Amino acid sequence: MSSIKMIEAAAERLKGHVRETPLLSSPFLDEIAGRRVLVKPECLQHTGSFKFRGAWSAISALDAGARQRGVIAYSSGNHAQGVAYAAARHGTSSVIVMPSDAPKLKIDNTRALGGEVVLYDRATERREEIGEALATQRGLTLIRPYDEPQVIAGQGTVGLELARQTRDLNVNQGDVLVCCGGGGLSSGIALALEHHAPGLRARPCEPDGFDDVKRSLASGTIQTNNCTSGNICDAILTPEPGQITFPILQRLCGPGLSVSEQEALRTMALAFLRLKLVVEPGGAVALASALFRKDQIEGDTVIAIVSGGNVDSRTFEQALEFLT
Amino acid sequence: MSSIKMIEAAAERLKGHVRETPLLSSPFLDEIAGRRVLVKPECLQHTGSFKFRGAWSAISALDAGARQRGVIAYSSGNHAQGVAYAAARHGTSSVIVMPSDAPKLKIDNTRALGGEVVLYDRATERREEIGEALATQRGLTLIRPYDEPQVIAGQGTVGLELARQTRDLNVNQGDVLVCCGGGGLSSGIALALEHHAPGLRARPCEPDGFDDVKRSLASGTIQTNNCTSGNICDAILTPEPGQITFPILQRLCGPGLSVSEQEALRTMALAFLRLKLVVEPGGAVALASALFRKDQIEGDTVIAIVSGGNVDSRTFEQALEFLT
Repeated sequence: MSSIKMIEAAAERLKGHVRETPLLSSPFLDEIAGRRVLVKPECLQHTGSFKFRGAWSAISALDAGARQRGVIAYSSGNHAQGVAYAAARHGTSSVIVMPSDAPKLKIDNTRALGGEVVLYDRATERREEIGEALATQRGLTLIRPYDEPQVIAGQGTVGLELARQTRDLNVNQGDVLVCCGGGGLSSGIALALEHHAPGLRARPCEPDGFDDVKRSLASGTIQTNNCTSGNICDAILTPEPGQITFPILQRLCGPGLSVSEQEALRTMALAFLRLKLVVEPGGAVALASALFRKDQIEGDTVIAIVSGGNVDSRTFEQALEFLT
Repeated sequence: MSSIKMIEAAAERLKGHVRETPLLSSPFLDEIAGRRVLVKPECLQHTGSFKFRGAWSAISALDAGARQRGVIAYSSGNHAQGVAYAAARHGTSSVIVMPSDAPKLKIDNTRALGGEVVLYDRATERREEIGEALATQRGLTLIRPYDEPQVIAGQGTVGLELARQTRDLNVNQGDVLVCCGGGGLSSGIALALEHHAPGLRARPCEPDGFDDVKRSLASGTIQTNNCTSGNICDAILTPEPGQITFPILQRLCGPGLSVSEQEALRTMALAFLRLKLVVEPGGAVALASALFRKDQIEGDTVIAIVSGGNVDSRTFEQALEFLT
């Protein structure tokens, strides 16, 4: 279903609308990792995460009628902001269904980016019921966060850029570490690399204790997490790999990696100090794996995708404590 | 002395060694500024500031013998790190003369980047005497921070990139706000724009009370600051415009702008929240001018150069207070 042709077509639709993020590096990080570390900062993407790519891809792939009727998404995080902004830039409407106890800043941001926020009570309501009723009434198209071929295609454009950028640097072999929740970004990148940089291998990175993808890859069958909250890496806590993403991950990815919350926070501090980037905890796990799992990585060069930077100042200050 | 030909030649020498920094934006910043704001983040440059460009330009322009003997610079800040790293990447040595009370992190960073740090006592020694003695003994070439044509040429490559990037966006008119200390970056950019984007006009931005360039441009003669310390924007506190830079600024720049320390800190918080960038106080004054001096700016689009991101965590936390 997902294919390199879909990723290349998505790249055409994204052209002029998405930011091509650079490759950054620092001799200080190389020193810690024991090899060259190249960082692709998707925190610099529109709305502060790679999610804008998948949202743009999905909305731009709709036929004109469906696009005009609008889209709907369930998310309180990066997917919400990506969908709201991509819809607004397409001149269409978006409904974002969020729990009523979501942080005010996230609700405000989603609204300011053009989303119509519909709140629901986690205790008494099911978001799917609310969403399906609205979708039927208004003819909205649901944009799933990862298990959706056009979303995977959009995230795969990160891999296309990376293939070009590494070729320019004569980097033809190595591990590409990817922050992984449901696997949309990891599977999209893996597909792009398979065709455009076959010496590079995607490897999903997760928080310790929420390493469903790592365990699923190791066992060969879909494994679930016991819980989906209670870790600082909120952006990438998902119950299990997707039905569409997992077969792609299984076919193309190397073994998964996982890091602790402390390692994610320490990495945020290092990204502040050495890269001048604001990275969110869930966006830091790939770079943390590059820095702190060096024995599990091979080769002279490792590439880490920083997937997002939407972090509140209190959490960021917690990370900065590692510098004092 | 400084010319567009020198800037273009510097760009050739920098190719493959310098990062082309992207142009970033946020609808939230546009809203505050009342117009489109494009941000060029030189905090993402090697060593965390644009200074690497000028250092590379100057070192790469030396004849082989002089380059092999090494270079020397007086600086405890961004110029020190730029020179140390550019020299190391050229396979040559650098001596950086720093006050013995400079922050330990800056001394450590400069050493880690390959610089030989020579400390002096501000109270009892003159750095020029120490530097000149060393330079004579060892045949070192002095790299001045701004009043040096090859340094200006290197900084001017920011303007060449900007001219290309704005052309791609069909932005042909507007103000380019530049953080300004001695005027190396401002004069380099102004020269590049004169030839490659004549509808764009450079405008130096400074901290209130340290606005020597703004006053010099207004009066037509070089004005000095009463003091050169006691402001959070430490990277751009200089006593007066340079002898080489001022005539260029005078011929090409629009009126200067200045902002308060509070506005610089608030801008750092906004860059954290909306751009995912770590910006230092002195690196924030151009963007602060775009956001908070809108009545002094004309046109639909304004461009702000973020000149650096080398800020300690305590100062950064001070900025983040504006978000709570």
